[in-house]
Amino acid sequence: MIDVAIVGATGYAGQELIRILLRHPKVKIKALVSQSSANKPVEEVFPYFGKMIDMSFTNMDVLNVADAADVVFLSLPHKAAMNVAGRLLENKLRVIDLSADFRLKDKSLYPTWYGVSHIEEDLLETAVYGLPEFYRARIKKANLVANPGCYPTSALLGTLPALAEGIVDPSDIVIDAKSGASGAGRVPSDALHFPECNESIKAYKVGSHQHTPEIEQELSAVAKQDVNMVFTPHLIPMNRGILSTIYLKLNKKMTTDEAVGFYRGYYRRECFVRVLKKGEFPQTKNVTGLNYCDIGVHVDEDSGRMIVISAIDNLVKGAAGQAIQNMNIMFGFKETMGLI
Amino acid sequence: MIDVAIVGATGYAGQELIRILLRHPKVKIKALVSQSSANKPVEEVFPYFGKMIDMSFTNMDVLNVADAADVVFLSLPHKAAMNVAGRLLENKLRVIDLSADFRLKDKSLYPTWYGVSHIEEDLLETAVYGLPEFYRARIKKANLVANPGCYPTSALLGTLPALAEGIVDPSDIVIDAKSGASGAGRVPSDALHFPECNESIKAYKVGSHQHTPEIEQELSAVAKQDVNMVFTPHLIPMNRGILSTIYLKLNKKMTTDEAVGFYRGYYRRECFVRVLKKGEFPQTKNVTGLNYCDIGVHVDEDSGRMIVISAIDNLVKGAAGQAIQNMNIMFGFKETMGLI
Amino acid sequence: MIDVAIVGATGYAGQELIRILLRHPKVKIKALVSQSSANKPVEEVFPYFGKMIDMSFTNMDVLNVADAADVVFLSLPHKAAMNVAGRLLENKLRVIDLSADFRLKDKSLYPTWYGVSHIEEDLLETAVYGLPEFYRARIKKANLVANPGCYPTSALLGTLPALAEGIVDPSDIVIDAKSGASGAGRVPSDALHFPECNESIKAYKVGSHQHTPEIEQELSAVAKQDVNMVFTPHLIPMNRGILSTIYLKLNKKMTTDEAVGFYRGYYRRECFVRVLKKGEFPQTKNVTGLNYCDIGVHVDEDSGRMIVISAIDNLVKGAAGQAIQNMNIMFGFKETMGLI
Amino acid sequence: MIDVAIVGATGYAGQELIRILLRHPKVKIKALVSQSSANKPVEEVFPYFGKMIDMSFTNMDVLNVADAADVVFLSLPHKAAMNVAGRLLENKLRVIDLSADFRLKDKSLYPTWYGVSHIEEDLLETAVYGLPEFYRARIKKANLVANPGCYPTSALLGTLPALAEGIVDPSDIVIDAKSGASGAGRVPSDALHFPECNESIKAYKVGSHQHTPEIEQELSAVAKQDVNMVFTPHLIPMNRGILSTIYLKLNKKMTTDEAVGFYRGYYRRECFVRVLKKGEFPQTKNVTGLNYCDIGVHVDEDSGRMIVISAIDNLVKGAAGQAIQNMNIMFGFKETMGLI
Repeated sequence: MIDVAIVGATGYAGQELIRILLRHPKVKIKALVSQSSANKPVEEVFPYFGKMIDMSFTNMDVLNVADAADVVFLSLPHKAAMNVAGRLLENKLRVIDLSADFRLKDKSLYPTWYGVSHIEEDLLETAVYGLPEFYRARIKKANLVANPGCYPTSALLGTLPALAEGIVDPSDIVIDAKSGASGAGRVPSDALHFPECNESIKAYKVGSHQHTPEIEQELSAVAKQDVNMVFTPHLIPMNRGILSTIYLKLNKKMTTDEAVGFYRGYYRRECFVRVLKKGEFPQTKNVTGLNYCDIGVHVDEDSGRMIVISAIDNLVKGAAGQAIQNMNIMFGFKETMGLI
Repeated sequence: MIDVAIVGATGYAGQELIRILLRHPKVKIKALVSQSSANKPVEEVFPYFGKMIDMSFTNMDVLNVADAADVVFLSLPHKAAMNVAGRLLENKLRVIDLSADFRLKDKSLYPTWYGVSHIEEDLLETAVYGLPEFYRARIKKANLVANPGCYPTSALLGTLPALAEGIVDPSDIVIDAKSGASGAGRVPSDALHFPECNESIKAYKVGSHQHTPEIEQELSAVAKQDVNMVFTPHLIPMNRGILSTIYLKLNKKMTTDEAVGFYRGYYRRECFVRVLKKGEFPQTKNVTGLNYCDIGVHVDEDSGRMIVISAIDNLVKGAAGQAIQNMNIMFGFKETMGLI
Repeated sequence: MIDVAIVGATGYAGQELIRILLRHPKVKIKALVSQSSANKPVEEVFPYFGKMIDMSFTNMDVLNVADAADVVFLSLPHKAAMNVAGRLLENKLRVIDLSADFRLKDKSLYPTWYGVSHIEEDLLETAVYGLPEFYRARIKKANLVANPGCYPTSALLGTLPALAEGIVDPSDIVIDAKSGASGAGRVPSDALHFPECNESIKAYKVGSHQHTPEIEQELSAVAKQDVNMVFTPHLIPMNRGILSTIYLKLNKKMTTDEAVGFYRGYYRRECFVRVLKKGEFPQTKNVTGLNYCDIGVHVDEDSGRMIVISAIDNLVKGAAGQAIQNMNIMFGFKETMGLI
Repeated sequence: MIDVAIVGATGYAGQELIRILLRHPKVKIKALVSQSSANKPVEEVFPYFGKMIDMSFTNMDVLNVADAADVVFLSLPHKAAMNVAGRLLENKLRVIDLSADFRLKDKSLYPTWYGVSHIEEDLLETAVYGLPEFYRARIKKANLVANPGCYPTSALLGTLPALAEGIVDPSDIVIDAKSGASGAGRVPSDALHFPECNESIKAYKVGSHQHTPEIEQELSAVAKQDVNMVFTPHLIPMNRGILSTIYLKLNKKMTTDEAVGFYRGYYRRECFVRVLKKGEFPQTKNVTGLNYCDIGVHVDEDSGRMIVISAIDNLVKGAAGQAIQNMNIMFGFKETMGLI
């Protein structure tokens, strides 16, 4: 059994962490930290949890969190996590950060993409990018895991195998991603106001989404060279789910059969990736509430393109579920524990 | 004033034709032909039209339709239109066909993509593809207009200007299209069953959608060479709208300012294309019920790609509205009549 | 031709007024007044109207509005309309107010239900409640029309005939109403945040909705006695539409046939009420964008209850459409002009 | 550990049974019986279950099911369950039937409401109505449990406490219920076709819904007299959830505080009923995927009415979850096992 704290527990990712951890047989939730909701019972903030958890949010400081827990999930807004991670680590906690604050290795990217100078350069170096399918061994030993963003998880799981094995051109990658509205968080805004968002679809932050450098960093790391990538996010009128349609240029001829076979082989030992059969393609409803990434593959032989389509639940494999998968790895639990 | 008949009037496109034509100041609806609903009052089939139209559907044959009308809209399923178009034309009607039956110039494509041999080769040649922004002069004189498909309308209006002016590579085109559910028609199916379709997104007919050859034909005609194109349709949980995100490879360097300027210039005289300012991108709700195609343009300078995003209402500019726009052109009415 | 101004033109009702008035053959929109969006082109605030209207919002004062227009639609928040209506009337404009500020005859209700003391008692008396089916003659001569609320329109059109003819018990009325999200207006809030509102239904303001006294006032006026009424509003995950299910207690035995016949007879001359046949019931999609109120009637003989179900589009018959219907009556136009 | 079979496992309730039972620590799923999908792997029919269950559907006969399992969930269409229940019971299985076939005590109601004569009169008598909050002791010993319908569960949990204690008038009950689309099952139909159902709300089967006699039977049983009840179901554009707004007539004066207190007291020991505080009302999203029934209570003192609002997930507390709750009771497991 391990003791767990969640800091910043009142957003959608925080809610999802609570939901999943309540069923985890090796976890005891010891603290739910929230400034805005301090001293409120959980069920007052989230009536969903009535009769399921008998705790209140707390305004606990770092030292008290450190006393209470073995591991802490930081589910704070971007830019807030870097202020507390260091002190938590000094106090011997292992930290799984769901924000972007430790995902980018190049600190110079933070001012550009997040409008903030990074204050914890050393931690940027030691933080491990928490995509288990590619960094499992390092996650196991990590004290600070930077849990991937939702779009990056979906984009990377679809793209990395082909890049890793050199079967596609790293300079010709198009990622067209579609996300449900919960990805934008719990703060009301014009764009997410129901009558504005419902019955409509749009692209947004075209050419400027903050997940772009994260995707590029990880694609380049695996390709062992700089990649050239276009990423376009879209807002879909549904609560949960990301579908990424990824267009890759094959380096040599390949049939759909071969491409599907390659992906199935590549991921055959992965517990949370499901590569569909030839002719089948994922839909987000099949991963709703689940930690799976579903992948479908098709080759367009005329144009020499491979189309990879991946689906995740943005709040599970794209956030809380993957964070718990990382926790399982860090603490030597079965990787699927609490997640199936 | 002209007299109009609609054959196959009980689908979604038929309903939309009635809706728009009821407001058209130069049109009188003389016949609404439907086998399945013959003799039923319109408002029984479509309670929406209660008190708006006092007519019944009829099982009228070709000669009677020819007597009644100056122009006929064929809103039949694919493969049914080719059986009646010839006789209607012989009887001096002008025909606007909303099916795919006269869109493809190469008759050999019909068995492959529509599972049927074409029985009216001569008409294939004389039929005019009804995309007014590119074929206005020929539409004016046409007796048989093949009204474009919904996906093609959206894809072509976004892509053709750049191809026509040679600023992008015809061998490197990716069209990622997202459609609301009404595009699939009015017949219930598993895929369109509410709980299956709602709260989910998926790609479908990947590499095999029947609109592919139509898009390729028109892209190639304008590019004056065979193009290489990948087209992926997606189903979105909303009723109406298509958003196409189009990835093109620039032949030479261009800024976003220049690209936006180019599109605005290209379409400056078009009444139904609205090119948005730099940094603005279309959303389908802004064209719901309208005959506009909204277009946003962005250049990703690193990858040398131009991203063009177009939005239409699949039942208006993608079907009934464009058909009426074509009618206006054919009969010398103001092109926007009844449509604004 | 009349000249029209809209004050407070950037909300959903304002947008709908513009949409409908653009098609009205006897109206010229002369001013669109908005403080928050002054000097912005209409299409910048509402990209929907691109190429449809070439005007900017303006911060015009009362005297200038009075110069510009024959009639003004006030589409301001509740409590703001009472500050300007008087001066507009003094300057010879006729005023159609879409807020609640002139709907309640008893000024003492304003502090309780709207948290404000009324500052224009005299106008409360002269204002005419703009429900044409019951007050047409007075609307014709009115200078100040208080356009009914969306819930009240739906509730009253369903209930008043039975009360007027004394066939149901005024002390036993249950109105269970369901509304789409646009009824709550255009300002983002927690309750209307997409992931909170989508895929859920709830009752809200149970026993305390501000439309309660408005409904009671009009029911009592027609019943010529105080009524006893319970009204429960619900939020539905859709953009537009109100469905009210109304439970009435019959004073004497009646069959469904008789009840349907009674409603059809009662409304037989009304252009915007459609009473459905026995066994048919309205759905909101059949009135979307339209000014109709659809009504279905059923008698439960065991319990002696009559169930009346009414459907409207909350932004059309429930707001902008009814306001324009009132304008048509006030200015002697055909009542349906611009609305069908 | 017990062995479980599900017969008719490919509908929405069947899918939900599998989803929940997979997590139940005392259950082993031994057979998933389906004629239509016999021999197909579960994940082929439900890609949702990929990697979660390694079984195929089977066309097993009654004897083989009896060999394989201790308890069987019948998730067949209405009218099909009565054909197999008897033989399963003879073979010593305990049966939990999710259809309506054993819910009505008066066999004469079946021809009227379900269009079929009942063929198992004896079983009608011995079957126990599976609403644990009211029949727990009998469920414990039952061999045949008739699992309640979704609407009845929601209506009864809201109404029965007040009836049981005699605080409301049994002759004056109005139940206005709103359901998501999955309640209508998995077979496509016009009404559930996405573009017909989305962005609309309607009442349906007004005065004639087949759940009416089931609700009346149970209300009357608890009231110990015939009740007079009106029940109106509505279709809401969402996948899951039922909200019932129930209007009751108080026999004597009561405040909201007292009414809330009464409900909280009545259900204080129930693990799956959550009575909200005064001023709070349920929304279906708070019970999505959960086995809870959330209840809010308000008294309208002017009219002497008590308004009770209840929310459930129609597929969980309204079907599969309640069936598993019944199973837990029947086999002596903790009642919440596998359900929280």
